[in-house]
Amino acid sequence: MKAAEQLNVLKANVEIFLPDNALEEKLQLAEKENRTLIIKLGFDPTAPDLHLGHAVVLKKLRQFQDFGHTIVIIIGDFTARIGDPTGKNKSRPPLNADQVQLNAQTYVNQLSKILDVSKCEIRYNSEWLGSMDMTETIKLLSQVTLAQIMQRTDFNNRFSGSLPISLHELVYPLLQGHDSVMIHADIEMGGTDQLFNCSMGRQLQEGQGQHGQAVLCMPLLKGIDGSAKMSKSEGNIVGLTDAPNEMFGKIMSIPDALLAEYLHLVTDFTPEEKQQLLQQLEQGDNPMVLKKRIGLNVVQQYHSTEAAEQAQEFFQNQFQNKRFEEKEFTSVSLSSLSLDQTGTLRVLDLCKELKAGESRSNLKKLIEAGSVTVNGTKVTDAQDSVELGKSPVKVRIGKRGYFEIVP
Amino acid sequence: MKAAEQLNVLKANVEIFLPDNALEEKLQLAEKENRTLIIKLGFDPTAPDLHLGHAVVLKKLRQFQDFGHTIVIIIGDFTARIGDPTGKNKSRPPLNADQVQLNAQTYVNQLSKILDVSKCEIRYNSEWLGSMDMTETIKLLSQVTLAQIMQRTDFNNRFSGSLPISLHELVYPLLQGHDSVMIHADIEMGGTDQLFNCSMGRQLQEGQGQHGQAVLCMPLLKGIDGSAKMSKSEGNIVGLTDAPNEMFGKIMSIPDALLAEYLHLVTDFTPEEKQQLLQQLEQGDNPMVLKKRIGLNVVQQYHSTEAAEQAQEFFQNQFQNKRFEEKEFTSVSLSSLSLDQTGTLRVLDLCKELKAGESRSNLKKLIEAGSVTVNGTKVTDAQDSVELGKSPVKVRIGKRGYFEIVP
Repeated sequence: MKAAEQLNVLKANVEIFLPDNALEEKLQLAEKENRTLIIKLGFDPTAPDLHLGHAVVLKKLRQFQDFGHTIVIIIGDFTARIGDPTGKNKSRPPLNADQVQLNAQTYVNQLSKILDVSKCEIRYNSEWLGSMDMTETIKLLSQVTLAQIMQRTDFNNRFSGSLPISLHELVYPLLQGHDSVMIHADIEMGGTDQLFNCSMGRQLQEGQGQHGQAVLCMPLLKGIDGSAKMSKSEGNIVGLTDAPNEMFGKIMSIPDALLAEYLHLVTDFTPEEKQQLLQQLEQGDNPMVLKKRIGLNVVQQYHSTEAAEQAQEFFQNQFQNKRFEEKEFTSVSLSSLSLDQTGTLRVLDLCKELKAGESRSNLKKLIEAGSVTVNGTKVTDAQDSVELGKSPVKVRIGKRGYFEIVP
Repeated sequence: MKAAEQLNVLKANVEIFLPDNALEEKLQLAEKENRTLIIKLGFDPTAPDLHLGHAVVLKKLRQFQDFGHTIVIIIGDFTARIGDPTGKNKSRPPLNADQVQLNAQTYVNQLSKILDVSKCEIRYNSEWLGSMDMTETIKLLSQVTLAQIMQRTDFNNRFSGSLPISLHELVYPLLQGHDSVMIHADIEMGGTDQLFNCSMGRQLQEGQGQHGQAVLCMPLLKGIDGSAKMSKSEGNIVGLTDAPNEMFGKIMSIPDALLAEYLHLVTDFTPEEKQQLLQQLEQGDNPMVLKKRIGLNVVQQYHSTEAAEQAQEFFQNQFQNKRFEEKEFTSVSLSSLSLDQTGTLRVLDLCKELKAGESRSNLKKLIEAGSVTVNGTKVTDAQDSVELGKSPVKVRIGKRGYFEIVP
């Protein structure tokens, strides 16, 4: 396909182009030289669990791959031993070789959910970094100034905040950049938080007389809780290996304000379909309708159409329909509760035992608001006693807490 | 000799002890373990011309050597390829291997003027640094934080002054420090400007479970022009290989204010002799007397007693006695001058040809002040002509310019 037509598809959703006309130039270059482009994606095998945030970048790579370009996955097995401090306020502990190998394998398996891994080139950066001697290291370091490195926001923040930065951390972006030199990357992709590291690759390539790579940064997907970034440590991810019900349920839990962003970044609707779905929302459709479409689409991508439909049905039964009997109950053994001598418990104490993470005052409010039922009957006085021990007792606490106490 | 007695001799003139009781502890350790100490002196073979400033440190090392301790000279052939930015506001160009080797040889030859080189251990730091791979480098870098490195004044000044610091320069102090780890140094010596780099060695040794080295810094000798530091680039040095006349003359040119400092740091008088000489000065002796004693002592150290006496005599004849005929004249061939057709030259033109580096206006002033003589006769009109070409003509310009124009 012509460069201009590819550009039209590939530029969608990209948040930063470095330089501005980078993508256009590279596509024209490939056309002129009658070759495909080398697109680099670096991966630090410290956290192999991929989620929809990663998928934003990977789906873009898939588009490049579908146009015939070559995706080179760099497994940063060497750099992982340093730990990239990007966005962190402290150093990471280094990984050992076994952990790195295991994580890399998990990562590649998960990549195959989006990319045709058989067509990717997979390189480990220990291949060239492991054998670099001090002379070569010094030569590499001499190409970058401290002031340039300190433009990286997290370094700058830590330094001005008197938080320690070990010298080896400063070297990380240079090593990642050197990977680009070694594979002659035309384009490096990443999230917007990788802009600095990727631009380092461009600088080092130019220092070696190569054409500097173009840098394309995709937006950082917001977490399902609406917070700034989907991230495992924040507990707000949709994992690419999540089971269909979990995946669908998580999508259904996102705030309505995120609908457009998720529609654009994580679904595979065509631009026209996206447009239409957004119009319906603007015309007054219940946001739940669009949310279900997104949920179905996502589960479909990572599982199947059938799994997506079943997940939707499960969700509706579990959280939307009123049929109490069809809910799934968490079974709690009677012996795990601290009953008093008469075999009874006050409702408040029972709720606290079942939901240990909730405060007593919150639970009391729930009871008084009529959100707690015992065997289908509301209990609104927190001091009421419940008799346990004879037959199974079903307790509902709030919207999603279903327990069955089994003798 | 007992630790306490050694301490008495060795502590003299040392400006900084890190930590305060460092020297005492190390001497006691050596006594207790019945061994000698390993004293490290690092040398960056970029500037092999040793001068009296270096001698201040080397003479202290000689004292250690005389007590039987082992001097290890580290030739920083590897680090020289980086160039130590200490005290500089810009990076140094790296040296190639041939230059380094040549400089190292010159350096060791000059060391032998003060140390018994046959008893020194001489190590090249390329021995361990050259073979260090990236993993080891990263491990080394991880032991030091950016904040620690930025305590070095010149780094700090350059960074806050927006002058570029290449990342490899930050690594220099760590490599020098690693040398201490490799040779298990007990003490590292240097000028006060080496305090930071030497203390890095102490830190890295402790990080490796070794006893941290003591750091002893000698004062920086002032230049013969009275400026803060004797340094080749300032053109204010007395070189250890200077000829006797030059060496003596340079000492005689120092400002009187430096007499005590030079007496303490560059002569080998005993403490009692030094005391006595200073007393005589305080009691009203002409400073010239002490200056000559220092000059004689210095020439004696680097040449011989005979050479020292001859140098003193030359100096007195040349610059102090009035006997014009005994001066040494620079011979100038008549054919090298641009005479006019009549074989004459105006005095001003003649002076300009003999002292091409002086401006015409300065020479005119000298003539008008009566400081120029031709065959012993003052010439005060710059326009007067001098007849040349028949017999030798002796011209004096100012205090030290003696020329004889030979047909």
